[in-house]
This record gives sequence, C-alpha cells and structure tokens, in this order.
Amino acid sequence: MKPRLFTPGPTPVPERILLRMAEAPLYHRSDEFRAVMRRVNAGLQYVFQTARPVLTLGSSGTGAMESVVASLFRPGDTVITVNGGKFGARWTQLAHAFGLKAEEIEIPWGRALMKEELAASLKAHGEAAAVFLTHCETSTGTLTDVAQMARIIREHSRALVCVDGISSVGALEMQFDLWGIDVCVCASQKGFMVPPGLAFVALGERAESAARDARAHGFYFDLLKALASWKTADTPWTPPVSLIAGLDAALEMIREEGIENVWRRHRRLGAALRSGMTGLDLRLFSQAPSDSMTAVWIPEGIPWRQFSDHLRKESGITVSGGQEEYARKIFRVAHMGYCDAGDIVEAVSGIERALSALGHRFPSGAGLEATQRALAEES
Amino acid sequence: MKPRLFTPGPTPVPERILLRMAEAPLYHRSDEFRAVMRRVNAGLQYVFQTARPVLTLGSSGTGAMESVVASLFRPGDTVITVNGGKFGARWTQLAHAFGLKAEEIEIPWGRALMKEELAASLKAHGEAAAVFLTHCETSTGTLTDVAQMARIIREHSRALVCVDGISSVGALEMQFDLWGIDVCVCASQKGFMVPPGLAFVALGERAESAARDARAHGFYFDLLKALASWKTADTPWTPPVSLIAGLDAALEMIREEGIENVWRRHRRLGAALRSGMTGLDLRLFSQAPSDSMTAVWIPEGIPWRQFSDHLRKESGITVSGGQEEYARKIFRVAHMGYCDAGDIVEAVSGIERALSALGHRFPSGAGLEATQRALAEES
Repeated sequence: MKPRLFTPGPTPVPERILLRMAEAPLYHRSDEFRAVMRRVNAGLQYVFQTARPVLTLGSSGTGAMESVVASLFRPGDTVITVNGGKFGARWTQLAHAFGLKAEEIEIPWGRALMKEELAASLKAHGEAAAVFLTHCETSTGTLTDVAQMARIIREHSRALVCVDGISSVGALEMQFDLWGIDVCVCASQKGFMVPPGLAFVALGERAESAARDARAHGFYFDLLKALASWKTADTPWTPPVSLIAGLDAALEMIREEGIENVWRRHRRLGAALRSGMTGLDLRLFSQAPSDSMTAVWIPEGIPWRQFSDHLRKESGITVSGGQEEYARKIFRVAHMGYCDAGDIVEAVSGIERALSALGHRFPSGAGLEATQRALAEES
Repeated sequence: MKPRLFTPGPTPVPERILLRMAEAPLYHRSDEFRAVMRRVNAGLQYVFQTARPVLTLGSSGTGAMESVVASLFRPGDTVITVNGGKFGARWTQLAHAFGLKAEEIEIPWGRALMKEELAASLKAHGEAAAVFLTHCETSTGTLTDVAQMARIIREHSRALVCVDGISSVGALEMQFDLWGIDVCVCASQKGFMVPPGLAFVALGERAESAARDARAHGFYFDLLKALASWKTADTPWTPPVSLIAGLDAALEMIREEGIENVWRRHRRLGAALRSGMTGLDLRLFSQAPSDSMTAVWIPEGIPWRQFSDHLRKESGITVSGGQEEYARKIFRVAHMGYCDAGDIVEAVSGIERALSALGHRFPSGAGLEATQRALAEES
C-alpha cells in the first residue's frame, strides 16, 4: 500500500526535498551554509510577502508561538486571545505561562471570529498590548479573515497583530506587509512541505521595537538573539542544517510555481475536497472552512477507529481525528503543501469506500462526481 | 573534493541514517510512529546507561540545557556552575536568564575542574540546589571526570548533579545510573551521528522530584510535559519525525557495535589524533584532552584563515576554529560518531600538508608515523 498522508502536519514531502535532506550535512559556521541561509531568508520573505526579517528557529510551531509571547511582552501585560479551538487556546495558555493577562474571546469551535466581537474586546481592553489570532485553526479547519481583523485592530488600538499562520502560510494568501501584520509564525511541516523541526517568525517593525522595550530574559527563544544572527545569515544555536537544506529546495519549488499560483491551487483543492464531502452526504464541521484543510463530521453510528483503520489498510490514507471534545466525532483532511488534484480524488475515493464498507448510505459515485465538477470549474 | 567533516557538531552522518531520514515522514500520532519512539526511547536508555527516562526534545542542545534550568529550579535558587569554556559559561548565562543565583567556579580554558575546587565551592554554598558540569567542554576539548565529581557532590551535599554531555554521550563512557548523575543532556549531531535538531534529557528520580516541586511555568521546554508524553511513547509537540527516524537507525548501529566498543573506538581515535598532532610538533590546547575532539594551538605565524582554507580546498576537510579569545589561535578537530582510523589518518595527513604549505617546519612524515603507531598500539 502506498502511504498517503492527509494529516495537517506532517504533510507529504516531495522527493526533491527528501533527497536534498539526504545530502551530507553542512557545517553551520561556514560560507557554504551561510549562502544556503541567505537564499532561505529571502525565500521566506517571498512566501510571507514581507520585506521584514523572517527568523528561523529549531523547534515546532509551538516554540515559535512561545518565542513571540516570551520576547515581546512583560509579565502583567494584557493581551487579547481568541479561543475557537485548540490552537487559539494555546495562545491563552502561553500568555498565562509567561505571566500575561489574557482577555479571551471564546467562540464556538468551527465558527470564525466576527469583527464585532473583536471590536468589542478592543473597546473593553484599550490597554491590550496585542491581539493573538489564528489564521487557520487546525483543530477545526476554520479560516479567520486576518486581513480584515488586522485593519480593525490597527484602526482602534495600538495592539500588535500576532498571527498563528502555522496551517496557512505557504498554502493560503498571506500578505504580511500589506495587511499590517506585526508577527506571523509558521512551521516547516505544513505548506512548506518539509518535515517538522523548523519554525518561522516574521517580525514587523513594531514587534521588533516591542522586543527591544520588553528586555525579556529568554534564552533559546529570544527573538532579539535570532534577529541579530539573521542579519549575517547566521543562527544563535546549532540549526537543523539538513531540514534547512530541505527548506532551501522547498522554497525553490514555491518560487518556480509562483506564490499566487500556490494560493490558487489551494483554493481549487479546498473547493474540490469540500464538494466531494458534501457529495457523500457528509456535513462540514466549520462554518468558515479553510482551503488548506477540512474538518468533517463522522456520520452517526460510524466508529472513528474503524473508519480510520479502513482508510489506512485499504487505501493507505492517514487522516487525523478530532481533538478534545470532538475526538471520534470529526475527521480532518489536510490538502496543503505537496498536494494536487489527483490527491483530492484519491482522498474522496478512499473515504467513500471506507464509509460504504461501514454502512453509510449515499448516492453511489456522487462524491467523485462532485469532486470532478469542482476541479473542472476552478481549473 | 570529498567533503570531510571534522567539526564538533554536525558530525558526519552515515548513509544508512541519511537514507532512513529520506523516507516519507510518518504521522506522529500513529501506532507506527509510536513503535519507532518506543525503540528510540529504549535505545537512548542503553546509550546513557540508565533505566530512567531519556526525553527527546525538538531543539539544539542549548534547548535541552534550558529545559533543565527552567523546569527543575525556582528563581532565587543557588546553583554552582563551572566556567572553563564557552559551554560551561552557558550554564551560568542560563541560570541568570531564569533568575537563579549562579556561584561560578572560574577556571582557565583548557584546564579541567579539580576536586578541591568543587569541594570548596560546595562547602561555601551548602544551599546549592545543583552543580552544573560539562563532560566534554567543546570550546577547549577538555574532559571533566564527572564520575568523580558526582561522587563528591553526592557525598557533601544534596545538590543535583546536572551534566552537559553534548559532546560526549554516544562517544565517551557515560554511566548515568552507576555514577549517580541526576540530569544529563545531549544532542543528535555529535556521537549520535544524526543531523542537528534533536536534544535529549536523561532525567533521574531526584531531578523528577525537583521538577514536581518547582512547578515552573515553562511551556515548550517543560520537562514534566515531556515526561508525561514519554510514558506513552509520545511527545507533547509535533516532533522532528524524520530526524527521529534517523535516530532510530543510529541507535541500531550503536547496538550492533556495542556501547563499550563505541567507547573503546573513541579512546583509540583520540589517542591516535593526539599522537599525530604532537608528531607534527603541534601543541595540544587542553591539559585534560577529551577522546571525542581535540583542540590544538595553531603554530606562531600561521594565519587561521589560510590554514582552514587550505584544508578545505586541498583536502575537503572542515575543522572548527577557536572561540572567543582563542579565535584564530587554536583549531578544533572532532573525532566522534561516524569516525574510524582511516578518518584520523586523513585528518593528520591533510593538516600536515596545510601546515607544510604555509611554512610550518616539522620532521617529514612524523605526524602520520606517530598516528600509525598509536593506532597499532590500541587496535
């Protein structure tokens, strides 16, 4: 069985990247490695659409989130967080861990933040030093309109706009400079098509000033240390050189395709996967679905474990289950990074066969028919 | 030119490990990956010679050092550190960053800690919660007798014995349980033969209690979170799955060779490299040289840059320079991990040719002759 990874990180890694990672590692304090790092730094700026530094850390995405909370604020600062899923809640947890006062906007899982909710919170907490947003909430597949939210925040406050772009950047449109974002974090194992182990922090000018003012005492995740090294295409600590070599290849591939085409491809794949799911009489979990991944209700009476086992054993497909209170109630299919129309067809076909084997009734062939139609419409 | 990496991290990676890393990544929340993790956890216990948990983090070695300082102590705690080089000093910096009171024993670079110095510090600071040691100080190639120091600490105090084993574990003898060590950290890109990006923390029973008492508020580097996940062969955050697959292959190789044989091989290679250097009329920098890497004075009048350029261009060899006040004064040659007698011969031969081209005078062939003799003696 061919392994077909549809999990929202790790995502499939192209052979070109795997083979690049399999080359003998470079010494990180060498001109040769600094040349790689210079290309990578420029490539990351292209993907985030920014002229500002994008820092590379050796950690998961959570490490990058921590670096922001730890480096830019002081204990006692008020920040606004949005809890509409596990990863929005992580900003709150991090804020608490570092002694910040988190004013949390709680919204139901699967619904996106509304601008009125944000405006009300900004009004109530005029002192807020930051608003933490989640572009694509990975636990629910929900997209937040960060361009709109950033505009509202900038209009009504001096709060920094801090965005978790982990399941979006490199897949969905991200205009760091144009949208007025101050910080955006991401990780390697999503749209970037590289295995996990690297995380990124795009650092705007106001965010850099905040870091200088905060004089935080962090160490490994000190963004000022990372920024100082970035200026000479260096890193403060021994970096994961083989993953960075893979990233170099990934950024070449993204440039060859063109970032606008990458965004367009994901819009098409997202629409096709959703059409396939509704064609199978399945209900989407999110009211504002992201084009990078989709959460779907498991039909009543179908056990999650049997469903995922069937997918894996009969089709080689791995999807993710739901998290926390939605464990065993939803499944999540990623379609980001190294993913094309053929992959979407495989996913819909495998899901159809698994559901059919487990007794779900739907018009035969309707899932694939709807998928094909959506692919044709947006080709 | 074949690339020949003699830097103290990254070290050369065997093809078996590179190819394993080049396989399609596994989803980390799967039975398949947990099976890998279980093997890796057991393999790490074998290399550290412990029945206690060895936690795997996604970071450089500095991240593992931070996890110890951040998780086991409270602000205001007194700790003893030993500054005999850049990495001993890092324990002091980390202690300060996390609000601990560091009582630093300062010793000249290149000299090892003496038991009288340690005993005096323990007597003066009876309240010390920990002593931070550096097994092999990477900036100087100096070995500390941690078995002896651990005995002294245990006899005279209740301080935890915390060891930086980054440039030693997997190369030099480490007996975590037998020697009474409480914490030992390491990283993947040294004796473990894997590219950088993973770090390890062996956590003794007293250290675990300290973490429970400290109730530190850390997040990414919270060792209690890592420990809770370890029990189910899991990780709290998305782990670098491809590096962990490589580690799985590395641990297989170490088991096949046998850990005692790994230690013996490094003793032999260290002795051979040192013989080669003294055969070339070079002076070793360290008074207590480690068998995992060697620091050597650059002869008067030979410019570091020309020396390292010659090595790289004519022999493909990369060595490291000195750090801080020893920049351009010493060079450092690693012989740990995937390294055998042939590599030592190549290193000595390349160094001989570079020095000769730059005007250093020595008895012709004496370096290699001394190397061969040492290899024969300890074969």
